[in-house]
Amino acid sequence: MSLFERSLTVEWGDCDDAGIVFYPTFFYWYDSTYQGLCRSRGLSQRTIRSRFNAVTPLVDVGSVFRSPVTYDDVITIEADVVEWSERRFKVAYTVKCGDRLVSTGHELRAWAELVGEGRLKGAAIPDEFKAYFS
Amino acid sequence: MSLFERSLTVEWGDCDDAGIVFYPTFFYWYDSTYQGLCRSRGLSQRTIRSRFNAVTPLVDVGSVFRSPVTYDDVITIEADVVEWSERRFKVAYTVKCGDRLVSTGHELRAWAELVGEGRLKGAAIPDEFKAYFS
Amino acid sequence: MSLFERSLTVEWGDCDDAGIVFYPTFFYWYDSTYQGLCRSRGLSQRTIRSRFNAVTPLVDVGSVFRSPVTYDDVITIEADVVEWSERRFKVAYTVKCGDRLVSTGHELRAWAELVGEGRLKGAAIPDEFKAYFS
Amino acid sequence: MSLFERSLTVEWGDCDDAGIVFYPTFFYWYDSTYQGLCRSRGLSQRTIRSRFNAVTPLVDVGSVFRSPVTYDDVITIEADVVEWSERRFKVAYTVKCGDRLVSTGHELRAWAELVGEGRLKGAAIPDEFKAYFS
Repeated sequence: MSLFERSLTVEWGDCDDAGIVFYPTFFYWYDSTYQGLCRSRGLSQRTIRSRFNAVTPLVDVGSVFRSPVTYDDVITIEADVVEWSERRFKVAYTVKCGDRLVSTGHELRAWAELVGEGRLKGAAIPDEFKAYFS
Repeated sequence: MSLFERSLTVEWGDCDDAGIVFYPTFFYWYDSTYQGLCRSRGLSQRTIRSRFNAVTPLVDVGSVFRSPVTYDDVITIEADVVEWSERRFKVAYTVKCGDRLVSTGHELRAWAELVGEGRLKGAAIPDEFKAYFS
Repeated sequence: MSLFERSLTVEWGDCDDAGIVFYPTFFYWYDSTYQGLCRSRGLSQRTIRSRFNAVTPLVDVGSVFRSPVTYDDVITIEADVVEWSERRFKVAYTVKCGDRLVSTGHELRAWAELVGEGRLKGAAIPDEFKAYFS
Repeated sequence: MSLFERSLTVEWGDCDDAGIVFYPTFFYWYDSTYQGLCRSRGLSQRTIRSRFNAVTPLVDVGSVFRSPVTYDDVITIEADVVEWSERRFKVAYTVKCGDRLVSTGHELRAWAELVGEGRLKGAAIPDEFKAYFS
């Protein structure tokens, strides 16, 4: 079972001239699902900033597309934190339309502390943050 | 009471550098809400095309912004068909965050029949289409 | 002659299932053209903030669509400041594809000063700002 | 030297609450740059469809982010076809801001022929298509 799941309806504006979802939209969904995962654990970008003085910028992302979806399709997106390293963590996504696999994706996020003037510095992920996802 | 209402969470990617929703996003929401209104009445762009051989392109749109919203805000969007003329109809939208008014907007849509080769021709809106919204 | 003009190529991702530009994209273009107009006058959101301690949020926007465009079309967008009131100014846009009129649009922007904690307060537009556009 | 290069100005609407480009935008840029690469070779989605009865759907995409960019930054995007297999080809992208590396990315695209009713079937890439990029 995944840490978090949501469903949404594919919108007209998510599709392109070929009548299927324009692929950058998948990353909007992955990012939104990460935000949803955080919310489901009592976190948000604001609380991460205020409690930990940190942000979680993207380092590496990717997606594999298995079958197309089009507007009015209802899809589910599952998210899991699949990897913790000292300064990075990886969130994996699976998109399905009913039982049909639509795509898988990942976001590798860094832990970066705010060090004044909007500047960031990589740092070790605090155990307190990790604990939110266990 | 409005014909249709939905709610959604404002996403991180909907906001701009000022930390509030980038305004073109409102029109994405209006259009999506129109699709939702159609769906709630048993219609979709596909059924409009197959049953009526027609599409409903935009002629005139607008929005007034009353107060800002930011990510993690939950908003509600109400939609109503507020005007029918021979070949056009107007959908009005109201966005709220709790009781606070966020924006109002409208889409004036034409009725256009497909006349071969992807070409469109304005036509009178059939009573059968109007009946879906009464 | 307009204050500012730019041209761009309509992209695949700007279009929807109907094969024409998804209409919220027009507002992305209008906003981008406003930024371009500012840049052409030696201004940016950053300099407006640092020199005037102000931002220019949207109050009212609209667009009329006259003819469709699709990907690979090259369009030109003209911008003009067409109205100054004490606390607001209106920017008008005209989009053409060759000689063909595609759309007209407007943005009514307020002048708002930053009064601490990210809060905004409407204020009179300084003559110094207006002078940039004359 | 790369097959194709373009530059663009990062727009206000491309950025998020953190003041840097919202990462799905990079994929919009990659896709647009692929279209630009095709155009520069006398191809477009339309000509690929009419001459080859084919489309080039995405199979796998990814991006590594090296340094952030924000609005008003001028970036260059280089594209190269770096790999041809029987039924797939890979396009690699490099984004720079001046000399600074911003991101690298890739799109793995399939060759798919239209076999009626909008259905697609994977097929070998014709030499004639490959020749456009040599």
